Amino acid sequence: MSAMKQRPYNFAPGPATLPAPVLERAAAEMLDWRGSGMSVMEMTHRGPLFSEIHAKAMADFRSLLGLGDEHLVLWMQGGATAQNALVPMNLLVKNPKCDYINTGHWSTKSLTEATLYGDMHVAATAQEPRILNEEACAAFGYIPPQAEWQLRPDANYLHICGNETIGGVEFHSWPKPSELGAAQTALVVDMSSHILSRPMDFSSIDLAYGGAQKNIGPSGLTFVIVRRSMIEQKAPKAMDCCPSVFDYRKVWANDSMLNTPTTYAIYMAGLVFEWLMAQGGVKAMGEQNSRKAALVYGAFDASAFYETRVAKSARSWMNIPFFLPDDRLYEPFLEGARARGLLNLKGHKAVGGLRASIYNAMPYEGVVALVEYLRDFERERA
Amino acid sequence: MSAMKQRPYNFAPGPATLPAPVLERAAAEMLDWRGSGMSVMEMTHRGPLFSEIHAKAMADFRSLLGLGDEHLVLWMQGGATAQNALVPMNLLVKNPKCDYINTGHWSTKSLTEATLYGDMHVAATAQEPRILNEEACAAFGYIPPQAEWQLRPDANYLHICGNETIGGVEFHSWPKPSELGAAQTALVVDMSSHILSRPMDFSSIDLAYGGAQKNIGPSGLTFVIVRRSMIEQKAPKAMDCCPSVFDYRKVWANDSMLNTPTTYAIYMAGLVFEWLMAQGGVKAMGEQNSRKAALVYGAFDASAFYETRVAKSARSWMNIPFFLPDDRLYEPFLEGARARGLLNLKGHKAVGGLRASIYNAMPYEGVVALVEYLRDFERERA
Repeated sequence: MSAMKQRPYNFAPGPATLPAPVLERAAAEMLDWRGSGMSVMEMTHRGPLFSEIHAKAMADFRSLLGLGDEHLVLWMQGGATAQNALVPMNLLVKNPKCDYINTGHWSTKSLTEATLYGDMHVAATAQEPRILNEEACAAFGYIPPQAEWQLRPDANYLHICGNETIGGVEFHSWPKPSELGAAQTALVVDMSSHILSRPMDFSSIDLAYGGAQKNIGPSGLTFVIVRRSMIEQKAPKAMDCCPSVFDYRKVWANDSMLNTPTTYAIYMAGLVFEWLMAQGGVKAMGEQNSRKAALVYGAFDASAFYETRVAKSARSWMNIPFFLPDDRLYEPFLEGARARGLLNLKGHKAVGGLRASIYNAMPYEGVVALVEYLRDFERERA
Repeated sequence: MSAMKQRPYNFAPGPATLPAPVLERAAAEMLDWRGSGMSVMEMTHRGPLFSEIHAKAMADFRSLLGLGDEHLVLWMQGGATAQNALVPMNLLVKNPKCDYINTGHWSTKSLTEATLYGDMHVAATAQEPRILNEEACAAFGYIPPQAEWQLRPDANYLHICGNETIGGVEFHSWPKPSELGAAQTALVVDMSSHILSRPMDFSSIDLAYGGAQKNIGPSGLTFVIVRRSMIEQKAPKAMDCCPSVFDYRKVWANDSMLNTPTTYAIYMAGLVFEWLMAQGGVKAMGEQNSRKAALVYGAFDASAFYETRVAKSARSWMNIPFFLPDDRLYEPFLEGARARGLLNLKGHKAVGGLRASIYNAMPYEGVVALVEYLRDFERERA
């Protein structure tokens, strides 16, 4: 490790950078996991060795999130995009009404898919630019104020995207449907890109889901955290058309091994969880992520050269889209960044521009290096 | 490599043994794929580096299978178990009739799931023991003779499980619905546990699917090989309830990247494909697998101590279940095997006994070591 030269800082939006010690351990254990003579990849998923890896990763995940008995954790496949269908398929069997808040690319995808399965209603949308708190906000650059949400009092659930990975819009606290005139409405959150990024209050959460490829590990692993009563009382069965392997009740009854799970991704997630615990868990992560985000946004706020387009109250700690004053500057910016070992800063094609994704595994030093580059590039080009 | 002691021989049914050189390369590239400064696990799936890995793996897979333009290859998630639902959801929109041949545990699962989506008919079943070619066959230890199959002439497709991983029953050639009175009926094959094990004639195959975790790579990656006309003419759309991310047409239109694919598993699959090509491809594999199977079955046939229960004509080259004359011998057998570095020989709980899975990555020497142990154990205990 010490002999290894500094790895580049990888600002990719996901799959994303992983802690170097985690990768080192995976490399060291690749041909022989702890004297077993096997790679984790080669282990039968029902044997005692993998069962131990599986159980440990699950327990650590629950512990990091501070989950109690009322929340079940399922590991599935198909990514958050599959959950866009599977959430309504699993929840809407008795009451088809579902409300969605539209804060960007990913919530749009979620609500569009939900129309296939239920009575979907957009309770609020940020698809038009507007002035909010005396601040000009781009389309999908803010969260509509809760006072304007049109929740249906008899909706089954309210869906939000906790963090819009592309737009960089994040909920910094959970809305409470019961305080918005919808006492029976459950809260469903797409947590793909900010799970484990800080302490989160799960007492308000009825279902959370996401892909693993941002703060957890490799792509291919999907988590679903669901309140037990949701799949026992509120929706005791899935829709008839739900494939068995995606029925939350069956996945739970089979300890997330209804069929062969994505074993290596679970192992890698387990290594990430151990690393997270050694760093001090989500509390320490939250503090560091807050400092990292403050440093980057501070640099943008102090500059007239760079532009951000998200309302301050909704700025994501994880994904920071930003723009240059001239389109001809993007290529030189990215080239200069690469030359300094700052990778994958290109924005998503849906919004253009640039984006720095600074998940848990991005060290503070990486953010410092980015801010130094921002300063130098501005000095050179402004 | 040369300094490394012999790895144990891992007879696990899947996830299963992988070629040591593949694992060595994965370990060496874990922190830095070819000077990129990133693990493959950390690469954004839409970037040029992963696109190259993805395209190369796809091209090699097609080349190994000898596929022409008429067959599309999709990479998905959810395993073969998900496909039990997704095949009917994707194919049955115009004509709900589907015929299934029941040769064991996995075909039973497939046909059961199909009842949720279509008009499922069991055209033949091996669920009762019988005498076949003067040979006593256990339940699910044979393939019902084609002359007895009751195919419906207007069925949409006929489904078979090409190789029953648990029962050890394998189709050694493809049935042709057109020769069985069903000229318009497509052939669908679950190929999970024998894909790439020998040259296969895809001209008769309309759809083949499977999980990767036997002959391809890590679990979590699912392949679907489908004739273009199946999803363009025969079933131009999926059922309305099919999640978008599992609609074959959408997966194809998005080059298997409709959402974040299971990137690391695709990379590992690519390494396995390169290894396979270096070994001489499926032709060389087929010759070696034939020799390996002959050696093991030969040992059983020459012994009155060990019992196999599958008709000779249907014996799998990949999975060989076998039994001891006394239940008290299983534990000592497995212990003795472990002591010799022969791992995971326990049978599936559904059929009990023992099972040797000898996929592509199991070297001939591993099978020799198994046969030597069989002989020694019999000598000691018979």
